[in-house]
Amino acid sequence: METKKAVLVTSFGTSHLDTLEENIAATEKAIAQALPDFTLRRAFTSSIIMKKLKTRDGIEIDNVPQALARLVVEGYSQVVLQPTHVICGEEYEKLCSLAAPFAQFLKLSIGTPLLKTIPDYWNMARAICTLTDEPAADEAVVFMGHGTAHQANASYALLEYLLRDLGWERAFIGTVEGCPSLEQVIRRLKAQPAIRKIRLMPLMMVAGDHAKNDMAGEEPDSWRSQLEAQGYQVSCILTGLGQSPVIRELFAQHAKEAADKL
Amino acid sequence: METKKAVLVTSFGTSHLDTLEENIAATEKAIAQALPDFTLRRAFTSSIIMKKLKTRDGIEIDNVPQALARLVVEGYSQVVLQPTHVICGEEYEKLCSLAAPFAQFLKLSIGTPLLKTIPDYWNMARAICTLTDEPAADEAVVFMGHGTAHQANASYALLEYLLRDLGWERAFIGTVEGCPSLEQVIRRLKAQPAIRKIRLMPLMMVAGDHAKNDMAGEEPDSWRSQLEAQGYQVSCILTGLGQSPVIRELFAQHAKEAADKL
Amino acid sequence: METKKAVLVTSFGTSHLDTLEENIAATEKAIAQALPDFTLRRAFTSSIIMKKLKTRDGIEIDNVPQALARLVVEGYSQVVLQPTHVICGEEYEKLCSLAAPFAQFLKLSIGTPLLKTIPDYWNMARAICTLTDEPAADEAVVFMGHGTAHQANASYALLEYLLRDLGWERAFIGTVEGCPSLEQVIRRLKAQPAIRKIRLMPLMMVAGDHAKNDMAGEEPDSWRSQLEAQGYQVSCILTGLGQSPVIRELFAQHAKEAADKL
Amino acid sequence: METKKAVLVTSFGTSHLDTLEENIAATEKAIAQALPDFTLRRAFTSSIIMKKLKTRDGIEIDNVPQALARLVVEGYSQVVLQPTHVICGEEYEKLCSLAAPFAQFLKLSIGTPLLKTIPDYWNMARAICTLTDEPAADEAVVFMGHGTAHQANASYALLEYLLRDLGWERAFIGTVEGCPSLEQVIRRLKAQPAIRKIRLMPLMMVAGDHAKNDMAGEEPDSWRSQLEAQGYQVSCILTGLGQSPVIRELFAQHAKEAADKL
Repeated sequence: METKKAVLVTSFGTSHLDTLEENIAATEKAIAQALPDFTLRRAFTSSIIMKKLKTRDGIEIDNVPQALARLVVEGYSQVVLQPTHVICGEEYEKLCSLAAPFAQFLKLSIGTPLLKTIPDYWNMARAICTLTDEPAADEAVVFMGHGTAHQANASYALLEYLLRDLGWERAFIGTVEGCPSLEQVIRRLKAQPAIRKIRLMPLMMVAGDHAKNDMAGEEPDSWRSQLEAQGYQVSCILTGLGQSPVIRELFAQHAKEAADKL
Repeated sequence: METKKAVLVTSFGTSHLDTLEENIAATEKAIAQALPDFTLRRAFTSSIIMKKLKTRDGIEIDNVPQALARLVVEGYSQVVLQPTHVICGEEYEKLCSLAAPFAQFLKLSIGTPLLKTIPDYWNMARAICTLTDEPAADEAVVFMGHGTAHQANASYALLEYLLRDLGWERAFIGTVEGCPSLEQVIRRLKAQPAIRKIRLMPLMMVAGDHAKNDMAGEEPDSWRSQLEAQGYQVSCILTGLGQSPVIRELFAQHAKEAADKL
Repeated sequence: METKKAVLVTSFGTSHLDTLEENIAATEKAIAQALPDFTLRRAFTSSIIMKKLKTRDGIEIDNVPQALARLVVEGYSQVVLQPTHVICGEEYEKLCSLAAPFAQFLKLSIGTPLLKTIPDYWNMARAICTLTDEPAADEAVVFMGHGTAHQANASYALLEYLLRDLGWERAFIGTVEGCPSLEQVIRRLKAQPAIRKIRLMPLMMVAGDHAKNDMAGEEPDSWRSQLEAQGYQVSCILTGLGQSPVIRELFAQHAKEAADKL
Repeated sequence: METKKAVLVTSFGTSHLDTLEENIAATEKAIAQALPDFTLRRAFTSSIIMKKLKTRDGIEIDNVPQALARLVVEGYSQVVLQPTHVICGEEYEKLCSLAAPFAQFLKLSIGTPLLKTIPDYWNMARAICTLTDEPAADEAVVFMGHGTAHQANASYALLEYLLRDLGWERAFIGTVEGCPSLEQVIRRLKAQPAIRKIRLMPLMMVAGDHAKNDMAGEEPDSWRSQLEAQGYQVSCILTGLGQSPVIRELFAQHAKEAADKL
């Protein structure tokens, strides 16, 4: 009898249908191409987003237990669970503990987020340098990471550290909910008076609410408004990480490594 | 939002389609009637039987993880798992440990087999007295229980003990794989020389292989042949416990008690 | 470096110092002799009894976690945990779950109570026939077991069943807290009108409160008083199971089997 | 009856008796002073170090299971387990899983390492600024952290990031086994040509083998030798973090927060 294998790509989710397609679906496709013997499945972790998609658009998406349960029902026996998270934070730990009970019924291998090992950080730093042009002498790029109260919050500082090693002196990473804050980023921008123009770009899987509102929004407390108030000329790039083939390839590699452990 | 509730009736299973209908399906129906707000579902635990049904008859039946996983997928949140086991033996313990991981995703209440508490034993002894007529002075009834190496094997002796309290002096319980053995039953039959006729009847959920072959078969080592070789006139009743409305009602009560704990 | 091995004999406990010595200590000694390479340790499970011994007599006895923790502290790495229970009931299950966490720090093998496998029942039935003389034609022996609401309560009936196979027709087992009750035993005594004299004997590890009061006491509801009220001539044997070298040998065998699994 | 409380301070350990006293013992003392109702206990996690201390010096130190088991034996019921780790890395996770089984017998609260929450990072960055004088214009301080393949390795970069926010422009953190490497630190030193003198200092609990050999040793691959080879004038400060009252106070606060959760 043939072994049935699946790869379950798990994302926080988004209610923006454009970014769902361009980021999440595109990343799922890249992972599926890297694992041709595996059936591709999708799960989200945000129940608010799943409810919104169902109510508003009639789109039903499994949560993690449902998606794994569905694989049990259908007789799958080997499953790669690949998250599309950036850091090994709370969401990733929650995912691992939701999946754990299914290890009694499925051979289960969980892939890692983008940033876990030291080689991961170098790969990601190099990938970031492909997301946008290197800033000119009067320019800076400021990436908006999510940030978290979890200890994984330190990831952003190491990533920026490595950008320096790669020669990008005017690339900064701030976070919405953690550290570095925008205030800390501004302090560093001010230290380089030549900088006049700022490119803002999300360091998140999707260009969703945070990107559209907290980063690029018209409100006075958006990053764009705050940086303009400091006298900078600000432009916004509204693409999520999942739109980059280089980033998608990193996720595909992580999924492949997880599959190799099955 | 409405709470979706299900009762999953779990049986060892049988490949005899007649007894499947008359015993298992009939018991499931009685349980469903006792729990009108619960969707009825079926699972078997014997993979050999499930394979046989699928290959031979194209009938697909879920095992326990599949059936519970299916309920997770379909959004059920409260589940009664009611086994159709007679004793709290190895099968029941296996069932409990298979179900345990799902308690993280479902409110799960597991009903008990027919024989757990002391009132259970009295109820079951009284039920047995309804399965067949009380044996006449020259007659005995010998029930064939399954028997097990598990400590639950002691259940059969207590059940026979209570049959005496209920006044049935010529009802005996032997087991195929445990203790009392047929040899021990014969010793007791011999001690009552008035007994000339023996009625054999399965003390198992279904009248399947054990009943048809080990009990009533033509082979020299069937119980029937062995008792005939001892000079007894033997008749066989080929009905499983599930054919008795009284037994089915006991299962329904156990399921109801489990539902009350949700 | 030498492997340090210990056998921890675990009893419910007793506050009667005589029976503690004659039953528990004697059984521990027999187990220790069967496992000469193992350090002998004692634990009780009844906190009421441990408190009483400490307050009244200044005797400190470890509970199970303390005794196992002490072995960890002292660098023991292989431990047999041998209970002195009769049945695989609630006390035994509690013991197993108290010991489980220590399996991360110790190689732990838990011996079984007197009654688990079918051979155990036969061994125990044969041992019972050595505890007292076979009753004469006008006599019966009634053993007082503890009894329980746990499914292991069925053990007593199977044990009595086997006493019949061994030819003891006038030996009965009743229980204080379970089934068979004394009432059920009396029903069977009455069925044999030749019986005029009754020997009462505990089927418990120690001859403690149950034996001294519930069985042999002067109160009108003691077994002795109730049987005398029925017109029987009653004698009481106040020895616990632990006073029998045959029973002690059974425990020693169980401990040895557990040691073989280390 | 009085509740017995203990605080178990757990360190990786050191075989250098001077640093054991000045760092570990001093930190334990500070923690004990913050928790006056708690008995102070010590455990190490490195079995190599415990073996060396025992063989060489006759000093016996408990590992974590032994220390917790000892508290169970002695009747303690509330225990704070405070590690002296810097980051939430592998050692900390191992510690948590070693302690977990004891939560069935003890009310157990595990304090966090120095670096977990964002406020922790700020506190630690401020503490670092008290460990040595702010470097002069021609000077840099280079701290040697341990580093790890665990995702917690990112901690060092965030800590250095915050040192900049506090105005320390010429303080760098490298690691022995992780990232940033000394090579990455040297790249940053070179970028500030005014720097001629370097102060080396361990960012580890004790000034043990890593500090004495890998940092300050005479061998050509020690950090000192490598920096001297680059033309820098190097001085070494051989004090562990535990010698700083400010750092000790941070550990005491973490232990106090853990005690508040009991």
